[in-house]
Amino acid sequence: MAHADAVESMLRSLLDDRPRDGEVARPSGLMQAIRHGALSGGKRLRPFLLLESAALFGATGPAPLRVAAALECVHCYSLIHDDLPAMDDDDLRRGQPTVHRAFDEATAILAGDSLLTYAFDIIASDETELPAERRIELVTRLARAAGLGGMAGGQFLDLTAERQTPGEEGILRLQAMKTGALIRFACEAGAIVGQASPADRERLAEFGSAVGLAFQLADDLLDLTSDAATLGKAAGKDAAAGKATLAGLHGIDWTRRQLSGLMDQASDLLRPFGAAGTMLRTAARFVVERNH
Amino acid sequence: MAHADAVESMLRSLLDDRPRDGEVARPSGLMQAIRHGALSGGKRLRPFLLLESAALFGATGPAPLRVAAALECVHCYSLIHDDLPAMDDDDLRRGQPTVHRAFDEATAILAGDSLLTYAFDIIASDETELPAERRIELVTRLARAAGLGGMAGGQFLDLTAERQTPGEEGILRLQAMKTGALIRFACEAGAIVGQASPADRERLAEFGSAVGLAFQLADDLLDLTSDAATLGKAAGKDAAAGKATLAGLHGIDWTRRQLSGLMDQASDLLRPFGAAGTMLRTAARFVVERNH
Repeated sequence: MAHADAVESMLRSLLDDRPRDGEVARPSGLMQAIRHGALSGGKRLRPFLLLESAALFGATGPAPLRVAAALECVHCYSLIHDDLPAMDDDDLRRGQPTVHRAFDEATAILAGDSLLTYAFDIIASDETELPAERRIELVTRLARAAGLGGMAGGQFLDLTAERQTPGEEGILRLQAMKTGALIRFACEAGAIVGQASPADRERLAEFGSAVGLAFQLADDLLDLTSDAATLGKAAGKDAAAGKATLAGLHGIDWTRRQLSGLMDQASDLLRPFGAAGTMLRTAARFVVERNH
Repeated sequence: MAHADAVESMLRSLLDDRPRDGEVARPSGLMQAIRHGALSGGKRLRPFLLLESAALFGATGPAPLRVAAALECVHCYSLIHDDLPAMDDDDLRRGQPTVHRAFDEATAILAGDSLLTYAFDIIASDETELPAERRIELVTRLARAAGLGGMAGGQFLDLTAERQTPGEEGILRLQAMKTGALIRFACEAGAIVGQASPADRERLAEFGSAVGLAFQLADDLLDLTSDAATLGKAAGKDAAAGKATLAGLHGIDWTRRQLSGLMDQASDLLRPFGAAGTMLRTAARFVVERNH
């Protein structure tokens, strides 16, 4: 995918060892760990959604790619911290050792902290060539999607869910926070970067919510039906951890029907954009049909 | 101190359980841990410096206190993560159990992540009543002070310093990053909030650098000369960890002379402001003379 290559290359240039104005130095050991966590491939789904959503509104200039790279920094920070022994305790990520395995725990914590912080730097930078008002809007939306009422809060709920099984409503809220918020942000941010109308921006955010929920259902399904070799990480972990998922609760057939319904919903939301929405529709389908 | 109370009360209202627009929910268990880490007193030195620096330029409205609260969120996040077993492994902070002790490690990691993220939300918010350009400037400066080329990078260097003893230049760089950058930001941010001229802004940033270095020297001195009861945390840890400090390298008398020199330098930087600079001068002296 051309988008994934462009994002990789933008991240590579942002995450080099050269200190920028206002930075004292970039410790090379820390930068190595950061690059290990951020440049190790990955599907770059969130950047893809952001870039295609921005393209829908004719966004040009450096902003889409830079904001997409910032978003990927936040996603990678969350993976690094979620993989830690105190959290999900994963040794493998995308078939590679996780950051705390390749380096050590302290370095992994700091690499995650640094990527999260850097994301706001990238968005706020003049180099996006966006008006300050747009950048401020992106900072606010990203902070709310990633923070205590979004992704971080969702990860907290997910960890406690292993002890106190939540009901269906609880699972939906948990997932809207843990994985949904950042995917919703990806689509909404593309609309912000593309200076979309408030109505279109809300439409893209809703599209993002549908894709986010589908992403989580597809993930649960993979955990139920796949194996570690295909997945590039341990499989069957949800059930082993006694973690309640909608797929586990309602079974494989129900989940496949839900996914199909969400695809229809996502498609309907894109209808006003006609053929221009094709790539986003394809991305939504990719989310559902992926096998790793 | 009136400032500390105002900051405490602002933090308390920002860190309640009520989700804001764009947040799905604030998990109460996570919020408890966050409040444990952010509302447990503390000297509120960085907010004090920011508020007095802003006052020097006649800043009014909600911005100084809100930006000061955001800065304190970043400081508290760094304490929560630094205290983790994988980092400095501290059980006590301000005489209270650290967050991972009072809750658990995963919760402490997420509480820190959430506070860091929330700081950018607070600064970017319309409720600061600052022009978007000023808010963007604050986001950028804070990200660079806290991130891979500032505080987080400094903590990484500090952890590796226990294995590879750095020379004097290395120690200075480490400290400029680990503690200096955020104190420098406090003073510079006050000038930004107060719409100071570029020259005055630079002057305040330099004042912050001098105070930051003095803060670290005073801290090293306390570690050499104090005991755990006075300090509210374990003492003598630097030497026990084989950690090189300037105070350890040059001795107590040299360090006291350096501190006195830094106070003169800080005082000189404030000279153009006349009597208006008294509170900042007092703050600098407080940093040097504190005994815990």
